[in-house]
Amino acid sequence: MKIGMIGLGKMGANMSRRLMNDGHEVVGFDLDEKAVQELESDGADGATALDVLVGQLDPPRVCWMMVPAGEAVDATINEVLPHLNAGDILVDGGNSNYKDTLRRADRAKEAGMHYVDVGTSGGVWGLKEGYSMMVGGPDEAINHLRPAFETLAPGPDKGWGHMGAVGSGHFVKMVHNGIEYGVMQAYAEGFDILQAKEEFDLDLKDVAETWRFGSVIRSWLLDLTARALDDDPDLPDIAPWVDDSGEGRWTVKEAIDLDVPAPVITDALISRLDSRAENSYTHKLLAAMRNQFGGHDVKASDE
Amino acid sequence: MKIGMIGLGKMGANMSRRLMNDGHEVVGFDLDEKAVQELESDGADGATALDVLVGQLDPPRVCWMMVPAGEAVDATINEVLPHLNAGDILVDGGNSNYKDTLRRADRAKEAGMHYVDVGTSGGVWGLKEGYSMMVGGPDEAINHLRPAFETLAPGPDKGWGHMGAVGSGHFVKMVHNGIEYGVMQAYAEGFDILQAKEEFDLDLKDVAETWRFGSVIRSWLLDLTARALDDDPDLPDIAPWVDDSGEGRWTVKEAIDLDVPAPVITDALISRLDSRAENSYTHKLLAAMRNQFGGHDVKASDE
Amino acid sequence: MKIGMIGLGKMGANMSRRLMNDGHEVVGFDLDEKAVQELESDGADGATALDVLVGQLDPPRVCWMMVPAGEAVDATINEVLPHLNAGDILVDGGNSNYKDTLRRADRAKEAGMHYVDVGTSGGVWGLKEGYSMMVGGPDEAINHLRPAFETLAPGPDKGWGHMGAVGSGHFVKMVHNGIEYGVMQAYAEGFDILQAKEEFDLDLKDVAETWRFGSVIRSWLLDLTARALDDDPDLPDIAPWVDDSGEGRWTVKEAIDLDVPAPVITDALISRLDSRAENSYTHKLLAAMRNQFGGHDVKASDE
Amino acid sequence: MKIGMIGLGKMGANMSRRLMNDGHEVVGFDLDEKAVQELESDGADGATALDVLVGQLDPPRVCWMMVPAGEAVDATINEVLPHLNAGDILVDGGNSNYKDTLRRADRAKEAGMHYVDVGTSGGVWGLKEGYSMMVGGPDEAINHLRPAFETLAPGPDKGWGHMGAVGSGHFVKMVHNGIEYGVMQAYAEGFDILQAKEEFDLDLKDVAETWRFGSVIRSWLLDLTARALDDDPDLPDIAPWVDDSGEGRWTVKEAIDLDVPAPVITDALISRLDSRAENSYTHKLLAAMRNQFGGHDVKASDE
Repeated sequence: MKIGMIGLGKMGANMSRRLMNDGHEVVGFDLDEKAVQELESDGADGATALDVLVGQLDPPRVCWMMVPAGEAVDATINEVLPHLNAGDILVDGGNSNYKDTLRRADRAKEAGMHYVDVGTSGGVWGLKEGYSMMVGGPDEAINHLRPAFETLAPGPDKGWGHMGAVGSGHFVKMVHNGIEYGVMQAYAEGFDILQAKEEFDLDLKDVAETWRFGSVIRSWLLDLTARALDDDPDLPDIAPWVDDSGEGRWTVKEAIDLDVPAPVITDALISRLDSRAENSYTHKLLAAMRNQFGGHDVKASDE
Repeated sequence: MKIGMIGLGKMGANMSRRLMNDGHEVVGFDLDEKAVQELESDGADGATALDVLVGQLDPPRVCWMMVPAGEAVDATINEVLPHLNAGDILVDGGNSNYKDTLRRADRAKEAGMHYVDVGTSGGVWGLKEGYSMMVGGPDEAINHLRPAFETLAPGPDKGWGHMGAVGSGHFVKMVHNGIEYGVMQAYAEGFDILQAKEEFDLDLKDVAETWRFGSVIRSWLLDLTARALDDDPDLPDIAPWVDDSGEGRWTVKEAIDLDVPAPVITDALISRLDSRAENSYTHKLLAAMRNQFGGHDVKASDE
Repeated sequence: MKIGMIGLGKMGANMSRRLMNDGHEVVGFDLDEKAVQELESDGADGATALDVLVGQLDPPRVCWMMVPAGEAVDATINEVLPHLNAGDILVDGGNSNYKDTLRRADRAKEAGMHYVDVGTSGGVWGLKEGYSMMVGGPDEAINHLRPAFETLAPGPDKGWGHMGAVGSGHFVKMVHNGIEYGVMQAYAEGFDILQAKEEFDLDLKDVAETWRFGSVIRSWLLDLTARALDDDPDLPDIAPWVDDSGEGRWTVKEAIDLDVPAPVITDALISRLDSRAENSYTHKLLAAMRNQFGGHDVKASDE
Repeated sequence: MKIGMIGLGKMGANMSRRLMNDGHEVVGFDLDEKAVQELESDGADGATALDVLVGQLDPPRVCWMMVPAGEAVDATINEVLPHLNAGDILVDGGNSNYKDTLRRADRAKEAGMHYVDVGTSGGVWGLKEGYSMMVGGPDEAINHLRPAFETLAPGPDKGWGHMGAVGSGHFVKMVHNGIEYGVMQAYAEGFDILQAKEEFDLDLKDVAETWRFGSVIRSWLLDLTARALDDDPDLPDIAPWVDDSGEGRWTVKEAIDLDVPAPVITDALISRLDSRAENSYTHKLLAAMRNQFGGHDVKASDE
């Protein structure tokens, strides 16, 4: 099928390539002209503007957005929607908050178009191994998109699923990422304990390799961990600073709103906040309190 | 090679079978005669007592204990040790606390025997898929045991590793299980959030299947989760009660002793304690306090 | 001064009484006529409707809302605002979310009135001991209200403070309650540990009394805890079920939005969610997973 | 009464002074001669060695140890015990682990002496305000010590209590400190959230003062917090580094051993570990994993 891919960053470009490798046609657009040119050299049609991209598609047109969650999605919709017709399909394959998706879907629906949300997992490995896709939206649109899903997924009938009504795809992806935070943190804490046990002088790379086969905790994230430990398990060049991209905090807030106790996913998020907290006021005040009641020495600030 | 397997429960019996399937000889002992007879019918030599088992082995004798962690290990050693000679090898393949292992290894060493600890992961699937084994102990003994490890593991050169000196195998296995607690809890919380979101009416089995291929959180535990959700994702026959077998709490205490912050592994353990806490005094007292300062109604106890 | 008190529940009625005891005049309104009559019998003027209440006040009129946070506040404002004039003062003394307060203040400001938020702590003890009040809003209005604050507080110059611009009062109160969750939980966990240590057979009431004087953890909440333990430290009539009234979850979300790690306040909230979670899906799924990999028995559900 | 005070640090010296101020006699010993001389100048008899100190007491002799928990206690007992007679009383007023206390009490009992454990709270303020004391041991000994407790406590009949058999005093004190960790952390997190909310530009000292009177969270620790914020609420001279003295981790481990979920006390401990973790391996590995699957940039280490 023919797909208009909007946003040719790491995800959008690789997905385009995987689609084209399997015989689909892609018209690509990105604000960065160089990204468009690169994809053209791989066989895509490049578009210099969003209306041009729409013009190169056939009805029902499929516009697949792979742009950063937030304002960029709304801006794209603003620009694309006037050029679409009833029955066309607008796909948001990014990490949008499902509440935004519900709002945007209402807007698209009013204009007569289909709106489909595709939570997409797989990262930079997806080009080769396929993407896991959690899809929300109306049956009709999803059936039309089926050939694309079957190509993008690790196999035609695995790694993608129609979760339910629009919004459900991003909701499930949000929770996926919440779980991801917890799982990553569990491994990281475990390896931290291992490296701290100096008397056993463990080779963390060996440990990871041993666990990769046959153990209860074997997983793809463990495979990646083994890779990360490959050069130097001390990770000398990496700062202890961990970013987060939104889904983790959304998951934590959603759990609270649903009255679901989720201590592990929550503490995994808090640990990331911790990693970025400099000169923690909490810890300064704790030290000051101890000094007040116990006369305990405080450590003088270096600043 | 020929191995004396002591303890023919789920783990010991299946490991014996995997060994025999690959051409090794097993002499098996268990306090439960029926377990011995069953293994005999699969081709093992059964022993009616530990001294008999030792007598059926050739030097250097390999006695491989797969008995419950704790007193059973000490009891077994007490009985076996007098019948062993210098150079014989005593293997503890169970979930012993590594501190006990250090103590027992000292004792075996004084008597001239080798002591090897093998943290063994894989559960009931190990017979078919192989076991992941984290091995600690002296090179000489581990080289002698190599053919057994190569058979028991998922592949001759994968899924087992010599971690370091004696004790390191159980130490690494302990941390493995701590990670396991965190990973399991992360998945469980995620699925709990999904099922609580009634408006999307998600099919949890579909979600699990979708994630199994291509997603960042694909793992063996997720494969098992998909299996567990297969019959009825509501899990109507299962009580919300989660046991723990010791390694989780050891990991938490070890993290504290090493000054390593491990909030996720810790909260995963606490969640299991929570699952078993009936009529929580913490929660009763919180309700009573709220009543004291705010006149908030308390819920009357049903008891 | 003369104050129109809207909402005569536990808080509003007691605050009215404390005001009248110190010579202020109160016009009271409540949807429950009986509450109005009771306050009248204590010396207040009762109003049968909000416009009547406004009519009984002198400019600048002070309408002090003590109604449940949420829609009741907006409904009250909708009804009162049309009867107020420029320069009149609308006070929200309830537990409103500060974001709602900012929105409502904008609306009042556009209509020419002052909007003042008063986070009020003290519970049912405030009548006798005074209330702690965290006040946000414009200087002019707060100066006008000063006599009321001086009466309501434990002392004219203590226990109340002008925190800053409108919204800051409710913000500080929100965080106050977040801290309260953490502090209560810390005590409750401690007493839980004490009661679980059967070999010491501790008298929890004695412990609480001992800590009340001279200890680092002496506090008013500990005083209340001692009272709660007075009858029967086993709290046999109280269910382990803890409600929450919103501020705790707002605090947790605010901490996340501000990138502040707040594990203790967060876990105190999660513990309350736990207390109300019946038949936890997290725990059912954990048990199911353990059964999958280890063949561990699950506990059959009683349902 | 006459008391031999062993250990004249901040706690022991101040307790001696409070005893002497109320008419008791103190014989003081410390390894630091200067500490002995200072107490002599306040009216105590100084002893140059432990046997000398014992010689200056009358039967039943009372030796009150205020030495650092751990080996110093055992060393003191080793030296003092041979000079004591049946019926003499050995008091441990420090922060010993209750398990050590049980062991030491057995030893003292075998030698015919009484052993009394006194968990002592109050810090540097105890001299003026009195100490809270949680006492464990036999009735006979505690009755003999009563005059000292009545003096040391904030009032003759408040702030001290006989918790139960020997060990119970240190057990209750351990839990007291666990609670203290949780309570302190709750306040610290709250103030951290307040300071992070830049738009309200709150004066934290004002907030603390407002809360000190009438609020639900008024407490002595809050009084101290207000003092700590007095000079400069930014705490510019204090490093975000919080020590711990053992009781917190003992409480966490005890909660685990008793199967009591104690997430808040536990997370308060973990936060202190966090404050001291430099170049966290957990956070480095998390960053490395994110880079592996998502191609996310890592922050280069400064080292």
